[in-house]
Amino acid sequence: MTSLDTSLIIFQPSGRQGRVETGITLLDAARQLGVDVDSVCGGRQTCGKCKVIVERGEFAKYGIQSDPQHVSAATADENDYFRRHPSKFSAGGRLSCVACIAGDVVITVPPESQQRKQVIGKSAGNRPIEIDPILHQYYVEVEPHTLGERRGDWERLQEALAREWGLQHLTIDIVALRQLTNALKAGKHKVTVTVYGGKGQESRIETQGSSIKPPAPFMAKVLDVRGGFHEGLYGLAVDVGSTTVAAHLIDLTTGETLATEAAMNPQVSFGEDLMSRVSYVMMNGNDGLRKLTQAVIGTLNTLVEKAAKRAKISVTEIYEAVIVGNTVMHALLLGIDPTELGAAPFTLTTHAPIDVRASDLGLRLHPAANVYLPALEAGHVGSDNLGVLIAEAPERQDAITLLIDIGTNAEIVLGNRNGLWSCSSPTGPAFEGGQIAHGQRAAPGAIERVRIDPATGVPKFKVIGNEAWSDTLSPDAVGATGICGSGIIEVVAELFRAGLLRSDGRFVENLEWKMENGKLDISNSQSPISNPQSHLRWQGVKAEYVLATAAQSATGKDIVITQDDVRNIQLAKAALHAGCKLLMNGLGVSKVDKIVLAGAFGSYIDPLHAMILGLIPDCDLATVVAVGNAAGDGARIALLNKTRRAESAPFARDGHYIETAIDPNFQQEFVGAMHLPHMTDPYPTLRALGVLPAKSASESDGRSARRERRRERQEKF
Amino acid sequence: MTSLDTSLIIFQPSGRQGRVETGITLLDAARQLGVDVDSVCGGRQTCGKCKVIVERGEFAKYGIQSDPQHVSAATADENDYFRRHPSKFSAGGRLSCVACIAGDVVITVPPESQQRKQVIGKSAGNRPIEIDPILHQYYVEVEPHTLGERRGDWERLQEALAREWGLQHLTIDIVALRQLTNALKAGKHKVTVTVYGGKGQESRIETQGSSIKPPAPFMAKVLDVRGGFHEGLYGLAVDVGSTTVAAHLIDLTTGETLATEAAMNPQVSFGEDLMSRVSYVMMNGNDGLRKLTQAVIGTLNTLVEKAAKRAKISVTEIYEAVIVGNTVMHALLLGIDPTELGAAPFTLTTHAPIDVRASDLGLRLHPAANVYLPALEAGHVGSDNLGVLIAEAPERQDAITLLIDIGTNAEIVLGNRNGLWSCSSPTGPAFEGGQIAHGQRAAPGAIERVRIDPATGVPKFKVIGNEAWSDTLSPDAVGATGICGSGIIEVVAELFRAGLLRSDGRFVENLEWKMENGKLDISNSQSPISNPQSHLRWQGVKAEYVLATAAQSATGKDIVITQDDVRNIQLAKAALHAGCKLLMNGLGVSKVDKIVLAGAFGSYIDPLHAMILGLIPDCDLATVVAVGNAAGDGARIALLNKTRRAESAPFARDGHYIETAIDPNFQQEFVGAMHLPHMTDPYPTLRALGVLPAKSASESDGRSARRERRRERQEKF
Repeated sequence: MTSLDTSLIIFQPSGRQGRVETGITLLDAARQLGVDVDSVCGGRQTCGKCKVIVERGEFAKYGIQSDPQHVSAATADENDYFRRHPSKFSAGGRLSCVACIAGDVVITVPPESQQRKQVIGKSAGNRPIEIDPILHQYYVEVEPHTLGERRGDWERLQEALAREWGLQHLTIDIVALRQLTNALKAGKHKVTVTVYGGKGQESRIETQGSSIKPPAPFMAKVLDVRGGFHEGLYGLAVDVGSTTVAAHLIDLTTGETLATEAAMNPQVSFGEDLMSRVSYVMMNGNDGLRKLTQAVIGTLNTLVEKAAKRAKISVTEIYEAVIVGNTVMHALLLGIDPTELGAAPFTLTTHAPIDVRASDLGLRLHPAANVYLPALEAGHVGSDNLGVLIAEAPERQDAITLLIDIGTNAEIVLGNRNGLWSCSSPTGPAFEGGQIAHGQRAAPGAIERVRIDPATGVPKFKVIGNEAWSDTLSPDAVGATGICGSGIIEVVAELFRAGLLRSDGRFVENLEWKMENGKLDISNSQSPISNPQSHLRWQGVKAEYVLATAAQSATGKDIVITQDDVRNIQLAKAALHAGCKLLMNGLGVSKVDKIVLAGAFGSYIDPLHAMILGLIPDCDLATVVAVGNAAGDGARIALLNKTRRAESAPFARDGHYIETAIDPNFQQEFVGAMHLPHMTDPYPTLRALGVLPAKSASESDGRSARRERRRERQEKF
Repeated sequence: MTSLDTSLIIFQPSGRQGRVETGITLLDAARQLGVDVDSVCGGRQTCGKCKVIVERGEFAKYGIQSDPQHVSAATADENDYFRRHPSKFSAGGRLSCVACIAGDVVITVPPESQQRKQVIGKSAGNRPIEIDPILHQYYVEVEPHTLGERRGDWERLQEALAREWGLQHLTIDIVALRQLTNALKAGKHKVTVTVYGGKGQESRIETQGSSIKPPAPFMAKVLDVRGGFHEGLYGLAVDVGSTTVAAHLIDLTTGETLATEAAMNPQVSFGEDLMSRVSYVMMNGNDGLRKLTQAVIGTLNTLVEKAAKRAKISVTEIYEAVIVGNTVMHALLLGIDPTELGAAPFTLTTHAPIDVRASDLGLRLHPAANVYLPALEAGHVGSDNLGVLIAEAPERQDAITLLIDIGTNAEIVLGNRNGLWSCSSPTGPAFEGGQIAHGQRAAPGAIERVRIDPATGVPKFKVIGNEAWSDTLSPDAVGATGICGSGIIEVVAELFRAGLLRSDGRFVENLEWKMENGKLDISNSQSPISNPQSHLRWQGVKAEYVLATAAQSATGKDIVITQDDVRNIQLAKAALHAGCKLLMNGLGVSKVDKIVLAGAFGSYIDPLHAMILGLIPDCDLATVVAVGNAAGDGARIALLNKTRRAESAPFARDGHYIETAIDPNFQQEFVGAMHLPHMTDPYPTLRALGVLPAKSASESDGRSARRERRRERQEKF
């Protein structure tokens, strides 16, 4: 065999092919042809990442005969590798770093051997995420030190990383520097090095385009050095919510989520909602701030320990955390005084993404681990919202998407590739069950689904933890404890749809029309409430609607919706709707193509009811999607893909942001949006469904409920 | 006054002059003419740094009449400043940031108003050090945040620092980020910012020349933000010796040393010398390492607190420490296992300079403070030696300088601007009083000076703490406790000079020659030892020399020099001399122009005696200088001048280093250098002084002491 010999090699599934010099390794051939094959150990037959399948048979498509014999015989080390890792063994399986080409072959690169693996995002329209984290592990052999030589261990490690992996401009953390000498001794000069940043990092800078100031050239940093070959590169995606803290432990080489742990945010004991926690800091100063910070950090440490235990890894193998949260959570996590966020002008300490050493926050991960906190958009639009943007990527799409993340403030983003507009609307706690007489958090026993028969005014409902409707259960089997957010939305929307609520939100006093229509259903006269009118209980000028009877409730008391509850829901939905309208006016559109509801709450609300309430603008109901914890998913994506992470910073800086607190149109939109649904919007979808009268209905006559409702709508609120 | 009006302005002492637009401030005029005037508060009449003197009178030299009236009247704020700082007031004194030019003037810039101040180094041939630290404080006014604006406090601070001070590419430490919002509130948008790096940093990179890999562009980092105008920028220069730890607290704006604190290195209790501490770590593993590290860090924290208290500053105003030490101290300080330094090939974890957060080392300075550890040269040549180089700057000189820092290892550097050679010689503990029968540390009572009458063999000496020679005191007033290093060197050299020691280091058995010469002095027959021969006491084949009698000693026993003591001194001086010879051979010189003795020990030894012993090569004795703690002085210079700091890293990497442990010539030079002085060296200086016979003396005859000594010299050792 001379150096002029060449062989044809074809890689599947890419189909890339070419003639290469006979005698070179399959891995080198793959690299020459631009085929993506992974390798961690640098050809030491240790990591198995470069395993390929040498195919046997006639490949008519390519016109060649492939045979495992057309590749050099397995080495002793290679056989040893497969003996030690039987799960990796398969027919024709070879380590491409040592198997050399001896003739024409077809090679299959299995998915696990591709460097650029992908995982499917949970939200993000199930778009695949390319696994390209900011952290990498390298197995490298360092030259031994010889007496009289002027290079230390670190200088020789740098030289080895440059030679074997092309890494340049490295720095080393003091933690890794402390490990280095003994790791080299333990591994007999072979070590596994964990590097933050480095190769390919330059491309990150280019992708940021010209709209951003040139960042400082990126220095890669060695965070860890261990003797011998070692696999274990994990990250943490964390969503710190006001109520719940959730941590996902992720394998940064496969993208797999190994464990998810969640807990109540212990700050709840200092204040249920954000503003009461801000008040706590205002009143208790630095001590109060320290307590709140220590509380959430302590919980995170517990979650990390649990997740690591479940995944059977060490917390010291977790090299990075990406943490998202609203602006107050963000400040409290970092130990920054959030007082300024409690009042206009809602000043943030910084909008920029933050990289901080985990140990500086008191987080117990790897002692040199990094924590990345994505950028904040504005005083009330936090990195949780940016997480939703990272996950949903509206800026890559043509469809005009409306992203709504409902909490005490609703964070709303509207736009597409031509631009993004965002704002925060002060919805208050009503959607979370706050300021609602029988409101409660979404938990077993909470009423989450409601239907009211428009003919009779009689309700049926479902409680969390029971798939059956209440009317199919004996009352004592229902056990309702209260009403959660989605239940509140449905009951108010259903009350309106059934004609029990006027468009202005007041309960209808005179229900004679029901009788007029002759549709009174007395079939459930066995029910404790035999007369539907009695579901609406009047006390003087105020009414309340009995959703669950005392017999159906776990508390032994009626679960009711009061006039105040309806008013609070109106205030909340009007704030949300006004925010959406401001963004639509800003972007200059009268209709959106798609509505994405983020957050746990968004997953439970029914789009139709949300639209009846006027929570969301008119839209094809089929395009309304709930994406669950998209903020957490965004954190996971930022952890797994450094390019997406880098892309996200400009969103926060360059998007159009409307400060609802000072926009003169907000109050106007807000007042107009108090009605059910928004008076000034046509809502053709609801009209087509018959929930609202068709436009022509305004010409119809008679003292009907519909006419009554129309009249109400024309009244000034 | 139109914009075309110009005035002549002359700055003293620089003499720079030019016509500038009438009406501009004196500070702007200075900047236009390239005159160095300091300013910290950015023209807010707060810092007083820009104070200048407007001269009155006829300046014939320049041909102008200067008058304080040729400058605009003082503002209310300016008057207020001088009222609050009466010490700054002087006739004609004005704040140049507000005083505007109204006519021709002569302006004197007092030294304290020059940005580029200088202090005089203690060593370094009293060369001035330009004060140009890596840290600066800036007083800056940040735009208030307006509602709806998309910039956080940090973004607006960056903008203000860029606008007012030209700072770019800033990052901010989490510590400062936590302070920022409340500092802006407290200072009503005016804050004092402490920045590490920044302006002028680029020039640092250029000065490193082409021999160094291009470093990453420097990012400046905000370490601290305080509300309002605040002065207080301090640094720490630390020399961690095996025995003593010394810390100097330095004002980084004036260069002044405000306090110096020193303490025993508490690691002494784990092992007196370096190798016993290395053994301690070998035997006790990570626990042992942790104990040694915590011991020295704890002591440093105590020294820092004491120094800060003495200087009446807060430790949180100390923003950087520069720490030098030998390689084992360096490793133990950082928490790096020093075991490899205990045996060949003496592998260092890194040679590179290290920047590490003080808090990562457990050092309690400002919580974001940096610690800089200069580069290490080789396994036994530490940053203390680099400190000597920083202070002495042989690489800037034509004179070929030999730098010797004597400890358990002697660190030796030889060279000039054409190149530096260095090595470490295993001198052992003899020069520090170790392995010497009556050896002791330099402390009150230790014999430090010795003279022996060549005619009689009778000694006289001085002890530390008493300026009088022992022969002028009554015996019971002497109180000698032992012999310290300089005393040991002198007594051995004097014994040789008096003919009591042969060139090979053995005591002379037959002293009849003294009688032959008829010079026996019996004048001090009242002395307890009336016969000089009795100072040399023989016990069988071994002799010892009585330096202090039992009556003169505090212990009540004779203080003697044994044959073994002489042998140990011979071993030590031979190692040192061999090292010097290797470097001279490496550089290709047979003579050095200058010898610099560094370290406390070097300050006490007498050059002539050192040369008689053969400790140092032949040299004009007038050019032998002791520079004291040049290592600590180097740390101080590295703290005060960032350019000198940056220049020093290449010394450690690019200098020629000879590993004495493997150099085949070392053993040969070592054996040859055992004689007193080195046989193969001509030592013309000693011959000229008559300490050694002139070359022609070899032709003289007779059983004289000189002939006897010559004969000895010709014997093979």
